[in-house]
Amino acid sequence: MSEPAPHLSPQEFRRRGYAAVDWVAGYLERLETLPVTADVEPGWVRAQLPGQAPEDGEDFAAVLADLDRVVVPALMHWQHPAFFGYFPANASGPAILGDLVSAGLGVQGMLWATSPACTELETHVLDWLADLLDLPRAFRSDGTGGGVLQDSASSGTLCALLAARERATGFASTDEGVRGLLTVYASSETHSSIEKAVRVAGLGAAQLRHVPVDARLALRPDALASAIAADRAAGATPCAVVATVGTTSTGAVDPVRAVGEVCRGEGLWLHVDAAWAGVASVCPEHRALNDGLELADSYATNPHKWLLTNFDCSAFYVADRAALVTTLSVLPEYLRNAATESGKVVDYRDWQIPLGRRFRALKLWFVVRHYGARGLRAHIRHHVELAALLAERIAADPSLELAAERSLALVCFRHRDGDEASEALLNRLNASGALLLTHTRAHGRYTLRLAVGGAGTQRRHVEAAWEHIAAAAAAVSG
Amino acid sequence: MSEPAPHLSPQEFRRRGYAAVDWVAGYLERLETLPVTADVEPGWVRAQLPGQAPEDGEDFAAVLADLDRVVVPALMHWQHPAFFGYFPANASGPAILGDLVSAGLGVQGMLWATSPACTELETHVLDWLADLLDLPRAFRSDGTGGGVLQDSASSGTLCALLAARERATGFASTDEGVRGLLTVYASSETHSSIEKAVRVAGLGAAQLRHVPVDARLALRPDALASAIAADRAAGATPCAVVATVGTTSTGAVDPVRAVGEVCRGEGLWLHVDAAWAGVASVCPEHRALNDGLELADSYATNPHKWLLTNFDCSAFYVADRAALVTTLSVLPEYLRNAATESGKVVDYRDWQIPLGRRFRALKLWFVVRHYGARGLRAHIRHHVELAALLAERIAADPSLELAAERSLALVCFRHRDGDEASEALLNRLNASGALLLTHTRAHGRYTLRLAVGGAGTQRRHVEAAWEHIAAAAAAVSG
Repeated sequence: MSEPAPHLSPQEFRRRGYAAVDWVAGYLERLETLPVTADVEPGWVRAQLPGQAPEDGEDFAAVLADLDRVVVPALMHWQHPAFFGYFPANASGPAILGDLVSAGLGVQGMLWATSPACTELETHVLDWLADLLDLPRAFRSDGTGGGVLQDSASSGTLCALLAARERATGFASTDEGVRGLLTVYASSETHSSIEKAVRVAGLGAAQLRHVPVDARLALRPDALASAIAADRAAGATPCAVVATVGTTSTGAVDPVRAVGEVCRGEGLWLHVDAAWAGVASVCPEHRALNDGLELADSYATNPHKWLLTNFDCSAFYVADRAALVTTLSVLPEYLRNAATESGKVVDYRDWQIPLGRRFRALKLWFVVRHYGARGLRAHIRHHVELAALLAERIAADPSLELAAERSLALVCFRHRDGDEASEALLNRLNASGALLLTHTRAHGRYTLRLAVGGAGTQRRHVEAAWEHIAAAAAAVSG
Repeated sequence: MSEPAPHLSPQEFRRRGYAAVDWVAGYLERLETLPVTADVEPGWVRAQLPGQAPEDGEDFAAVLADLDRVVVPALMHWQHPAFFGYFPANASGPAILGDLVSAGLGVQGMLWATSPACTELETHVLDWLADLLDLPRAFRSDGTGGGVLQDSASSGTLCALLAARERATGFASTDEGVRGLLTVYASSETHSSIEKAVRVAGLGAAQLRHVPVDARLALRPDALASAIAADRAAGATPCAVVATVGTTSTGAVDPVRAVGEVCRGEGLWLHVDAAWAGVASVCPEHRALNDGLELADSYATNPHKWLLTNFDCSAFYVADRAALVTTLSVLPEYLRNAATESGKVVDYRDWQIPLGRRFRALKLWFVVRHYGARGLRAHIRHHVELAALLAERIAADPSLELAAERSLALVCFRHRDGDEASEALLNRLNASGALLLTHTRAHGRYTLRLAVGGAGTQRRHVEAAWEHIAAAAAAVSG
């Protein structure tokens, strides 16, 4: 026999595991002292690394040292308490440890049979989450639907559009391929993943209708109905509508009930993309976000955006799981098994694009059990309060103005001196390293976005951010 | 302000982190004493859990205790040293800890700008891997191509087929949608993910040609050429070929060079799916697996299948990254940034279906640095030797026969008494809990698959497996 590979014994794993935990704890401890954003040139990271893999194995300590030397200086620190960009990628201690256990178990849950706990815990925790968010009963597994964890809302949207494509074609297009013009509708403010999904699914970006929005940047149901009618008149087959609850740009909320009524009348699939905002409905005071959801065929919200669960963890629900499974199921001999044939189990490989899957539910389970419903509500409320505080300051500042009404924990604003001043303001803030904001265009104007969402973000961080913003705004004006 | 959420301090995280590491180490220690497969009825896991999420947070100790009470008894233990089913999902200590660090950092690498280290380390480690496997230079980032980590080979195949679809239509189908018949070719032994990708991409399963195979279950290039000619004659547009290096059923290897020559002559995109077998070319003695790869447009192999890196970690390479990026890029205002506009950086969001992405490269970096090239070769060699040993025993047994030539670490065999005896043999083996095998059909006959691939699998486990197999085979004969 040849030489053995240098595997770690459980004892060696334990020692290195403690060291890795210490490293992560140390990172979290000093996170606040680091600039939020990396300031490195393209190629800097690669220039620090050897051109070839080592011939002989290296010490774990050397790898950890390189995290400090090469990796940390070249990160945007998404967990920094002054990270207000994009939508923050929520992580929390319990989620990190849930992911550690998932990696340690190393199971692959493509089928119920390949680890019943991986599937059933996922179904169960997603039913818990449906209750926590007060979602319609149809999305629960004890009805006709159920939930699944996807890597991202992008993938959920793709699955929804595929099921919609199939339903609109009598379940013929997976077999025959796309024929004719199948049209999809979303507001002009919708996320880029909708267009990507339309392209991937073979429908063609030209068949995506960017429906006009109202003054609050929400989809206009009357314009939707007109667009559908025009397409039908032109011989196209309207197929699906994607409504957004909390757009990426400004947090606008489409009128889901009115949109859903159009969809019901027209027989269109309604997917609701609530990637960021949806989890806020853990709080009763935000349940208006759910209005009309009982008219939706599918729904997605991301615990990895704002519910303390690290990426990737996107909760995707369907009201009719049979439509989804029929669309995505291909069963080769080597995956046949008694449990699948019994019809008594869920095989999540048929609810997603890839075949294989990690045990993602563990981290969400760890989060929900650590925080409890009360802790999750506190988390959301705290951020919404902080954003409200900031929005007040901005509205009162002579050189700034809100670019849209505050949406939950997202504040969009601009400099009163115009786009150039707004862009200069953003650049000045981000160059400081003291905080990170991102930008968008709202009503055609350059707009700064500040999303409160970090697990570690507290009042003092928001107060400090405000000091920076006020000073920079004045400087830009000057 | 409202009540604070009960976040863990770094100190509390450290203590719980040690406990989680201890739990994982303990699991790995006792893994061998557990039955490989869960023996639970559908619904058992859910019946052990409360119907609703807790209102108040719970102790971490209670969650860890529930891992033992509810989760472990309902797992198929993919890391068990007697797990020989499917293709094992490789995990190793360094990979688990790389994933822990990734979760702890909590960065989201959709753009270079959103964490340069996340992107550059990935590009770098994939160049290392290309060198380790001796892949053609075109797949390296310093040429026209480069690598990216996908969640699975399924997703890589989908990306490849989308780029192929675009190239075949002059990059029109993402905009216009699929028009006419775009045909795809793969052997009749190909993985189910090819059909799934064809369906998702809107090409239609009816446009997937299952090209006949030879006696070794490898795709016949002459039959491929005939199928392409027939489709052209019928007015279809041949678009892509997927060749497999190491089929899931029996590890058959399609003749990539001959297939590639057909593709070059016809202008078809060639994707090579080497999900399981590809990593074996870390060993010079297995480099024949790479023959003809310079004719491929894209290539995938999974470190999560056989290179000690836990799921998900699929390495996907393209020879022409521009084709892929043009296919998948959608750039909204809120993702615009100076680095992207400079053209000097890679934005991996345009190399995959989802927008968001984890820092997956860390675990592969940890693995390569811990084991070194020498350790990785030792790992592969050890498994191939163990499989060879087992194949010899099987070939010499009076009641068993090999169903196909051993392929690397995969041994396919059957009972000489026919399909019923073979199925009874598998059921008897798996019911023992002492080992796990899976099945397929090869040449139309029921076939047992035994894939040596667990990080912890040693000679004694294979010897023990052989004792079980021999005894069960005799019992079934009797």
